[in-house]
Amino acid sequence: MGKTTLITGGVRSGKSAYALCCAEEYSGEKAFIATAVPFDSEMKERVKKHQFERGNRFLTVEEPYELYKSISAMNDSIAVIVIDCLTVWLGNLFYKYNNDVKIINEEIEMFVCSIKQSKIDFYIVTNEVGWGIVPDNELSRSFRDCNGFMNQKMAACADNVYLCTCGIPLKIK
Amino acid sequence: MGKTTLITGGVRSGKSAYALCCAEEYSGEKAFIATAVPFDSEMKERVKKHQFERGNRFLTVEEPYELYKSISAMNDSIAVIVIDCLTVWLGNLFYKYNNDVKIINEEIEMFVCSIKQSKIDFYIVTNEVGWGIVPDNELSRSFRDCNGFMNQKMAACADNVYLCTCGIPLKIK
Amino acid sequence: MGKTTLITGGVRSGKSAYALCCAEEYSGEKAFIATAVPFDSEMKERVKKHQFERGNRFLTVEEPYELYKSISAMNDSIAVIVIDCLTVWLGNLFYKYNNDVKIINEEIEMFVCSIKQSKIDFYIVTNEVGWGIVPDNELSRSFRDCNGFMNQKMAACADNVYLCTCGIPLKIK
Repeated sequence: MGKTTLITGGVRSGKSAYALCCAEEYSGEKAFIATAVPFDSEMKERVKKHQFERGNRFLTVEEPYELYKSISAMNDSIAVIVIDCLTVWLGNLFYKYNNDVKIINEEIEMFVCSIKQSKIDFYIVTNEVGWGIVPDNELSRSFRDCNGFMNQKMAACADNVYLCTCGIPLKIK
Repeated sequence: MGKTTLITGGVRSGKSAYALCCAEEYSGEKAFIATAVPFDSEMKERVKKHQFERGNRFLTVEEPYELYKSISAMNDSIAVIVIDCLTVWLGNLFYKYNNDVKIINEEIEMFVCSIKQSKIDFYIVTNEVGWGIVPDNELSRSFRDCNGFMNQKMAACADNVYLCTCGIPLKIK
Repeated sequence: MGKTTLITGGVRSGKSAYALCCAEEYSGEKAFIATAVPFDSEMKERVKKHQFERGNRFLTVEEPYELYKSISAMNDSIAVIVIDCLTVWLGNLFYKYNNDVKIINEEIEMFVCSIKQSKIDFYIVTNEVGWGIVPDNELSRSFRDCNGFMNQKMAACADNVYLCTCGIPLKIK
């Protein structure tokens, strides 16, 4: 298993920038797996902005669903992969599998497993979404729970975990 | 006063697991005060899962409202008590006292007082609920405020405070 | 540039109290810039409570919009200024400029610039609002993003940054 770093935090807390910044220090080939499918103009704008920031220093792969396949398919010449981000990926899975938590948890297991088996280094971005008032709809509660478990599972096998606030990464593992 | 540890964090951040893990290390008798009243199937499922995880190593007490009475009534032979969790308890008080913050604050005072007067060690789980967008209804805003003050009051007299993220406890006091 | 300290955290986490506590230690003249315009009874109550806590040890200035002007206009005899808080100020700007993020970002730039140019020490309170479920309306999402960028900008030029939880300030920079 390569070195795995999980980077979490609230929205606009500097998570992606920190992940990219760490990955930029590798001299070898770099890849970026984007989980966001730009389905509206707001999203398209955001994705375009992020692509511009990365420039052509990263091989970009768009994979909204089957992260483990993208990871397994990566060439051995790749030194480091940034995955951005797990929470958007989880949202995609909720949509694809019609909120079936059992299937989604299996997908999470398969993903975590593929990270463990890879020799590549990873910088994985995820989000904190469970620090607010309990949402009044069951789907949102289910999503918060699932995101929390996913983050715990990922953090348990990560070598380093950072919590970002105001653009400042705090090492918590 | 016994040693008091407050464990806070967002939903599914590993707070309960960490509290139980710490309490398990005591060789003496252990108690668990559950504040959740399982009123629907979603909640019943969650409570059942938690009970299974604790096994029979803890004396379990269900107390949705009068925490200070449960604490005062505890036998001297108990070495450690886990309380899980204050935010659910606060929700119960809001319901019982029809959102009357004045009465609720008095209940919080009485609870904190009973912790201070007890010789037993405590691991107390609470929640962060005020890190999101300002809710559009006054009740939710009032609840966030009240939860924040409760956490401050409890943390002020706790010997240790941990903030959990992705299953990782960070010592902040 | 004087010494600048940014204090962030969720609602009722002890941010304002910590900012005031730090500023109280200055022997020179102290000022307090309040950004909250009390437009309803709930807000008026909160503002009155805060004013009472400060007593007459601070020169109080109410400035809902043009923070940079208030800062530039401050007398050289002032040793320290508490600004409470940036997130409420940002809400005021969203209202004033009809959610026009471009204009609002310019206001943020001008504010940060005025802090950098001042020789006075600052304790600046802001809020974390992006650690919950993605809001279902675009305005809230836009506000979360903008608040996150503002916090990053401010933190980047601050000498110290604290994250408050349960009344406990954690130094993260």
